[in-house]
This record gives sequence, C-alpha cells and structure tokens, in this order.
Amino acid sequence: MIAPEIRLIALHGIPEIKPNDDLPHLIALAAKRSGIRFRHKDVLIVTQKVVSKAEGRVVKLDSVEPSDSATSFARILKKDARVIELILRETKRIVKMARGIIIVETRHGFVCANAGVDQSNVKKGSASLLPINPDESAENLRDQIRKETGAEIGVVISDTFGRPWREGQVDVAVGIAGIGPLIDYRGKRDRYGYQLKATVIAAADELASAAELVMGKLSGVPAVVVRGFRGPFTNGSSRELVRAWSRDLFR
Amino acid sequence: MIAPEIRLIALHGIPEIKPNDDLPHLIALAAKRSGIRFRHKDVLIVTQKVVSKAEGRVVKLDSVEPSDSATSFARILKKDARVIELILRETKRIVKMARGIIIVETRHGFVCANAGVDQSNVKKGSASLLPINPDESAENLRDQIRKETGAEIGVVISDTFGRPWREGQVDVAVGIAGIGPLIDYRGKRDRYGYQLKATVIAAADELASAAELVMGKLSGVPAVVVRGFRGPFTNGSSRELVRAWSRDLFR
Repeated sequence: MIAPEIRLIALHGIPEIKPNDDLPHLIALAAKRSGIRFRHKDVLIVTQKVVSKAEGRVVKLDSVEPSDSATSFARILKKDARVIELILRETKRIVKMARGIIIVETRHGFVCANAGVDQSNVKKGSASLLPINPDESAENLRDQIRKETGAEIGVVISDTFGRPWREGQVDVAVGIAGIGPLIDYRGKRDRYGYQLKATVIAAADELASAAELVMGKLSGVPAVVVRGFRGPFTNGSSRELVRAWSRDLFR
Repeated sequence: MIAPEIRLIALHGIPEIKPNDDLPHLIALAAKRSGIRFRHKDVLIVTQKVVSKAEGRVVKLDSVEPSDSATSFARILKKDARVIELILRETKRIVKMARGIIIVETRHGFVCANAGVDQSNVKKGSASLLPINPDESAENLRDQIRKETGAEIGVVISDTFGRPWREGQVDVAVGIAGIGPLIDYRGKRDRYGYQLKATVIAAADELASAAELVMGKLSGVPAVVVRGFRGPFTNGSSRELVRAWSRDLFR
C-alpha cells in the first residue's frame, strides 16, 4: 500500500518584491523554473511580507509623524515612536501592553503583537504592514495563478504570531482563498461511536505552520506549494479564524 | 534546481493499541509494511492518544469517585463529574472556568482545556490522560526505533489544543526527543542587515500541526513520518515550549 502523503515544496527564485510587482506572475515563473507545475488542489502558501511589498504596504519610518499617544507609549515600551504610531494606526483595540510588548486586535480582528507591523526582511528604516484585505490578496493570487497555469489552487497568506502560554511563534493564516479554514468534526462519531463535541481543526493555520518549516526566516523563500492536502476546497475567509470578542475567554 | 521539500507520510496499519503493547515495534512494523524505511533525521510524530493507550493512561469512568469539588464544578460546567475529577487530578492550577469550558495548567505545565483528558478515540465509558512524562515517552520511542531500524530519528508526541483569540484547534508538541523544539533567530541578521529581536520559532509545534494535516481525526492514522526537516536535531524537552507563569501576560 502506498502511504498517502503531503509534500511541502519550497519555491525558490522569487526575486526581491517591489511595489506593483506582479507577484502571482513571479511566483508562477519561479515554480516553472524549479520544475514545479501547479496542479488542481495544490495549496500555495505565501508570506504576508511579500504580499505587503507587492501591495505597497511598506512604510518609510522617516515619513511617519508620531502622535502624542504614540510618543508616550513608545517611551514606556522603549520602542521607536514612529513604529508605535504605525501600530496604533493598524489597531482596533489594545488587548495588552506590558513588559515592552504591545498585543492588539488589528483592523482585521487578528490578535497579535505589534498589529503585524514588522521591520524584518524589509529595507532598513522601513516597516511592513499587513495587507489591507488579506483574503482579497489571496483571491487575487488564486485568480492569477489560475490564469497563468490553469490550476485551481487554494491560497494561504501566512504571518508569524506568538501565542499565550507557549514559548515561540508559529505561522498562521491571515488570508485565504479557495479553501475552508476550519474542519468541523462536531457531531461526527469516532470508531468507538463517541460523538465529537468540540473538535474543529484550524487547517489553514496548520498549513501555514507546515509551510514555515520549509521557509525558515532567513532563507529568502517566501512561498511554498503544499501538495496532497485533502481540503475542504470551499470558499472560506480568514475571518472564520477570528474568535468573536464575546466568545473569547482571554481578552 | 531541485526544490528542497518536506514530506509528511501517514503511517497506516497501526493496530488498536492496548495497555503494555509494544508501540515502537508496532510503528516500525507498520512502516515496514507500508514500504517506509526510517532514515536518519526523520521525525516521527505520534498522537498522545496511542502513547497514552500503550502506557495504560486510559481510565474507566466507572472506577472514578468524584470529589465534592468535582461534583460541584461538574454541575456548573454541565459535565460528567467523573471526567471533572480526572481533570482535577491532572491539574496544577485552574486558569479559567467559564461557559462550560475549563482551562487548566497540567502537571507538565501545559495550559489547555480539560487538562488533556479526552473521551474521543477510546472505548466508550473511558477517558485518556496525557502521558505522565511525555518527553520520556518520546525518548523511549526514539530509542526503540533506533534499535529496530538503526535510524536516529526525532520524535514528537502531539495533542490537539485550542488557543485564545483564534477559532479552531491545532496540534502541538507535548513530548519530544532528539530535536530542539525552538529555533532561535534572535540576534541573527536578515538580508537587509536588520537584527531580529523577538523571532523564536516553535518548530516542534509546527511539526505537530503539519502532521495533523495527514492524520485527520477519524482516519485511524496516529503516526506520521516527517522527512526533510532541517533540525535542530539536539536533545530538547517539551518543557522549553512552556512559558513560565511569571513571563506570561495572559494568566
């Protein structure tokens, strides 16, 4: 018997991305040059960073005028007031400020450190912001890859988030297209007849985490093809991954 | 150029596990029958459930006498008092009780719902507990697989945990052997010369999440071979994944 498997294939050869670059085309090109042909039901995982670069969501810090509250928070957090200003602009609610860490709810609803504002892997003196509508960014990648290659794929845009209670960060999905982010087992019965009560698997987050294992943080690999994922290949949204404020026990 | 990749290979054919079964042998046998030869630096991901079964960490609920507090909590949480009794026995501290949910810190330090006590995929009227020392369980698997196959592998014992702020659960590492659970990028420089300040990747959790994608919850696949992981193949402990109470902003 052949074991079913999933392959996580790094896409090398994607160049440095600049504003208005045709990211889907550059990804399709990199795949072709690496001998990877997109197939139906492949899932393409792309880091938020390159998507934000292509969408012009990188800001020069010199162009940022910090507000009074940004300046005051920056003093307490011992951070650059211009970066804090960018964080505040991306923020719907502040969840926690302590020990130099600022955890917020972003305009999308994601709870993460620094509202996704990040100075790594961008030009010095700049910071990248999350895409304005990451699901739309994912949908655009999906559409363009279909046009370029004919393949109906799923897309996940990933970012690196910390979490309470556990050390270290993991990649999660901040934008999706062509897949359902959750696999709901509630009401299904296991082999013993026990009816599952609470099991809902965040498959899109697991896809993002899996892809991170081949990306690394310094390798310049911003995209991974996941082959063998069984779906669901429905039209989901990353909003399904956001726990409603009213249902959350920890904010 | 050949793209580097990671393969996630499901291990089919592992039989129903009973107390004192030789789990490493049954895993090695299932691999052999599926034509999978363990290689140096493979990582074997095994669910907590089968490890707990082999270690006799499954309890018949009829044998459990609930304490007064278990009975009282059970009434509030609308749960089986015997299950609550098992949860309390596994608990070091209660982090939160609300809306029928009980989040605790286990004796190992993990913060999760129900202290890892789980009634799914065990005989009816039973519940499984986490292994007493999951790192030791992982080390035993690693040693025995080495003896059976000659291969020096990494081992991750996985369980399914929820998290605040995001819907859905993901698999994380509760026991490890032969790998380091964290990849610490702090102080390293990206291609722009920016020095990473906070990036520490929980690779063991990402491995567990990746493996879940091929396991599913109802397929009877409790083990996955991850091939192509770049390490670190050091001697780590799952304790490194536990954020110290004093460093945690959310309890």
